[in-house]
Amino acid sequence: MQIREAAADDWPRIWPFWHRVVSAGETYTWARDTSEEAARALWTSPPKRVYVVEDETGTLVASAYLTPNYGGPAARVANAGFMVDPDHAGLGYGRALAEHVLTAAKAHGFEAMVFNSVVETNPAVGLWKSLGFTVLGTVPEAFDHPRHGRVGLHIMHKTL
Amino acid sequence: MQIREAAADDWPRIWPFWHRVVSAGETYTWARDTSEEAARALWTSPPKRVYVVEDETGTLVASAYLTPNYGGPAARVANAGFMVDPDHAGLGYGRALAEHVLTAAKAHGFEAMVFNSVVETNPAVGLWKSLGFTVLGTVPEAFDHPRHGRVGLHIMHKTL
Repeated sequence: MQIREAAADDWPRIWPFWHRVVSAGETYTWARDTSEEAARALWTSPPKRVYVVEDETGTLVASAYLTPNYGGPAARVANAGFMVDPDHAGLGYGRALAEHVLTAAKAHGFEAMVFNSVVETNPAVGLWKSLGFTVLGTVPEAFDHPRHGRVGLHIMHKTL
Repeated sequence: MQIREAAADDWPRIWPFWHRVVSAGETYTWARDTSEEAARALWTSPPKRVYVVEDETGTLVASAYLTPNYGGPAARVANAGFMVDPDHAGLGYGRALAEHVLTAAKAHGFEAMVFNSVVETNPAVGLWKSLGFTVLGTVPEAFDHPRHGRVGLHIMHKTL
């Protein structure tokens, strides 16, 4: 696998699984019918830095963004988003990408990372905990999950 | 006092105290040198709804915005921001505006309100608690306060 910063022409390879994951409505607090143009802005607009994972065949299997979570006096706290193509899930790409982005965040001067809205039923919660994130709190019944009904959104945090 | 939705020509009356408060760097996670153009976008860009308070003399003394805190499956959770002109602080305008906006949020279909980053040394924390908000969690040492050093950012929540 290769993990690198995204190039402009990577977006068309991210969009198919981005759309599939967001339209499923189980893990992201974005509109399920988000257009490709809006999705590209959400995932890649500066100051976001974008990362991608390619597997051994050159297939783009995962992506992440890294960005400040706040501005001004709190600008040293990062935020990031991660997405793995469901057709390539469970193979360790998410964990490898997360480790890469955490290292990059520290290298870029961030001192902590916060996830603002991790759906509590998302299996990724276990990954984040294994990487040292803790749940600071949970917004109760904030997310309308298509299978589980109203579930909470975790705010998760890790010092870098 | 009169509390109403803002008109387009209210912004020049908001900006002077907006700039004063944000440039003080004690309460908002925005750049202290935010330009007027960027400030206007932060405070008023759709889908934000903007409210203002005028005192008995017609002076604009406070403003707030109301907006969804998330999208898609979590779009029923609101976010809001409040600012009172420091020259008119302590006179109850903040509380009156908060009560107005909480009522408006419910009327617009929101089921809860979340503040993502309340500086823990901000006296407004007491106001939010008195209005029924609870601290869901605190991002430790996230905010570099000019007088208090590193302080936490509360995530606060209220069911509407």
